[in-house]
Amino acid sequence: MAQGVEIRGLGEHVGTVVTIRGWVQTTRVHGKVAFVVVRDGTGIVQGVVVQKEVAPELWQLFPELTLETSVHVTGMVRAEPRAPGGHELSVSDIRVVGPSPDYPIQPKEHGVDFLLDRRHLWLRSSQQRAIMRVRNEVEKSIVDFFYDRGFLRLDTPILTGAIGEGGAGLFEVEYFEQQAYLAQTGQLYAEAGAAALGKVYTFGPTFRAEKSKTRRHLTEFWMVEPEVAWADSDDNMRLQEDFVSYLVARALERCAEELKLLERDTAPLERVQPPFPRLEYSDAIPLLQQKGSEIHWGTDLGAADETVIGEMYDRPVFVTNYPKQAKAFYMKENPADPRTVLCDDLLAPEGYGEIIGGSQREDDLDRLVARIQEQGLPLASYEWYLDLRRYGSFPHSGFGLGVERTVGWITGRPHIRELIPFPRMLNRLYP
Amino acid sequence: MAQGVEIRGLGEHVGTVVTIRGWVQTTRVHGKVAFVVVRDGTGIVQGVVVQKEVAPELWQLFPELTLETSVHVTGMVRAEPRAPGGHELSVSDIRVVGPSPDYPIQPKEHGVDFLLDRRHLWLRSSQQRAIMRVRNEVEKSIVDFFYDRGFLRLDTPILTGAIGEGGAGLFEVEYFEQQAYLAQTGQLYAEAGAAALGKVYTFGPTFRAEKSKTRRHLTEFWMVEPEVAWADSDDNMRLQEDFVSYLVARALERCAEELKLLERDTAPLERVQPPFPRLEYSDAIPLLQQKGSEIHWGTDLGAADETVIGEMYDRPVFVTNYPKQAKAFYMKENPADPRTVLCDDLLAPEGYGEIIGGSQREDDLDRLVARIQEQGLPLASYEWYLDLRRYGSFPHSGFGLGVERTVGWITGRPHIRELIPFPRMLNRLYP
Repeated sequence: MAQGVEIRGLGEHVGTVVTIRGWVQTTRVHGKVAFVVVRDGTGIVQGVVVQKEVAPELWQLFPELTLETSVHVTGMVRAEPRAPGGHELSVSDIRVVGPSPDYPIQPKEHGVDFLLDRRHLWLRSSQQRAIMRVRNEVEKSIVDFFYDRGFLRLDTPILTGAIGEGGAGLFEVEYFEQQAYLAQTGQLYAEAGAAALGKVYTFGPTFRAEKSKTRRHLTEFWMVEPEVAWADSDDNMRLQEDFVSYLVARALERCAEELKLLERDTAPLERVQPPFPRLEYSDAIPLLQQKGSEIHWGTDLGAADETVIGEMYDRPVFVTNYPKQAKAFYMKENPADPRTVLCDDLLAPEGYGEIIGGSQREDDLDRLVARIQEQGLPLASYEWYLDLRRYGSFPHSGFGLGVERTVGWITGRPHIRELIPFPRMLNRLYP
Repeated sequence: MAQGVEIRGLGEHVGTVVTIRGWVQTTRVHGKVAFVVVRDGTGIVQGVVVQKEVAPELWQLFPELTLETSVHVTGMVRAEPRAPGGHELSVSDIRVVGPSPDYPIQPKEHGVDFLLDRRHLWLRSSQQRAIMRVRNEVEKSIVDFFYDRGFLRLDTPILTGAIGEGGAGLFEVEYFEQQAYLAQTGQLYAEAGAAALGKVYTFGPTFRAEKSKTRRHLTEFWMVEPEVAWADSDDNMRLQEDFVSYLVARALERCAEELKLLERDTAPLERVQPPFPRLEYSDAIPLLQQKGSEIHWGTDLGAADETVIGEMYDRPVFVTNYPKQAKAFYMKENPADPRTVLCDDLLAPEGYGEIIGGSQREDDLDRLVARIQEQGLPLASYEWYLDLRRYGSFPHSGFGLGVERTVGWITGRPHIRELIPFPRMLNRLYP
């Protein structure tokens, strides 16, 4: 058997005989020539079998080459500009490694529950693979962006006592003789990290036990949360617009093929350049009311409101300085309007809605204690967090970007369930 | 006030007046000259205050500059080769941002429980910061290594049904009306990813509800788990030795200062070059017995056995092909000795013990079903996993590397509790 090579590396083997190892995507017999298209994860290649040039056994093998059969295909590499990837194989041998009788996902329409029940197989389809490649690129861009700017990665705990944004929506865990909860955010821990290390970020899964069944909610999703010492709310928004612009530019540069396969119109993405427009919450309310929203000052924006605002601009837009009662306890009071806090939500254009929530943090001990008590949260759980204000308190800001929502916007896929390898939702814990 | 700059960037400001923002590490008054050392996360710098050159208020401020007081320090940047970082500030102004009265961690010996109870503050100490910087470098090296080699990152779920290495040691979660468990490994999901995408890796937290109180166990720890289609056990070990050598070389190259601060003898790390020696389990047993171990063929190595073997070599060593009954159900039977499986543990030298467990996976459907049943695991939970053998089964291999253990070895810190920002152990869920 010839040496096993990856399909993406075929260009280095033109004119030689190689073996590629992968899964059958399609076969086609056309008179005395047959074709087999194989995927190996690095690419796709077509093998051409000419009946008179191969053993009869090989020709007779074709009906066995059903969808997702795993195979070794040996053949001469030929440059073929019309083929995907630019090469073809003149096949001399095919060996079946693992048969695939009655593969359940066929090239036809399936219901989404049918597909989600078979997510471990659905991932093999071309669109799902393209989404995973974009996700991979976004995630690598995240770590490159922060590493290159001197941020330290700080892995914050998943298992926590009762701490986070509030009591609702927490998953409970039996932790030996104690009660633990799955982290909704790493932010509070990242704040401790910022005091030690200046600029840090967390990057990992977070959990919300929400019973909502919308296209924008998972119970387990990935979030990146930078936290920056000495940064105020303005610095924070500048970091966000640089960050988001970087993620989009990298995806455009390195995932052009995937975005094309997903039929994503990239023109709106090309416009994602800093600075992003900023709209004060208090100015947004009358605009929304004019457009028919029933929102009134004091409540958070609904998904429909976000869509309306997002569509007013040709790039992401910051909505800033929300009313205190609509936001978490740790956000810093706005000195210019103490009814509000120094915060921002970043709304993606084209109706994709919120992808970032950020704020300057309350650095005054007494105000922070009052806010915790106002919200009825257990002060004892936050003692360590209050220490950050007792010993060298400092202005600082940070934000959280949702990975799946960002990948959804970049790939143009509105439903979050296909933007993570194995989605977890209200009624979905399997596979 | 002058522009705020980072300490690591002072070299670009020699001869100009800047403001740095950070936390007081030490002060010292020496006659009519006083010194203040400040940390900002990017570096450390000494400010020099000459009594006759500053306002009396500034001179009188010194007693307030207690440990961890947050400050703005304004002064002229001077090159000073003897200073850490190569620069000093001729201070013209100091402003206290947040006082720090009675900071609990003082420059003296504290018990480890005292420190762990104040982990959010302990992270500010110089050794802990150095460890976090090495951890950051190791984690960036992990993602660079796999990205550069064409692996796709695949985030596997934390919330799962009963699936993993076995029923013991699972944390239970109330998942709406169902029972969920925290993932002990992402491997089984990564195998589905390998069939779709060829080469993948997971990188995230994993959970073991083990009651062990050793220096090598956390209940929540980070793991990286690559999975490679078409790779056999030999390929797998070659990937491991390349990977581990890369992690060590990057740390030596980019964390020299931190390793020096931690007093790590780097000579043993310099020797970490592929290939690594390989020792069959069946050959290790008589060696261990000769050295006084009570181990007998069939049981897993104990920590003491790992230390003995690790100290026999000057670089990491693979122990291969363990008895079937000592290892997980998914490992492939060894054709050369069906009592054993095609697997490896990688033991770090200098007594640091196992940092990797890897194996070729069982790709035969019937054998895999038999192994699941032998181990008394619920077959229904593994139906989707079995599908990977029903539809285009393929040889594949992978491994898991423990991030904290690896950072412990590289930094020379034997106790795992200080190698993660907020450790979770049997009796520790706070802060």
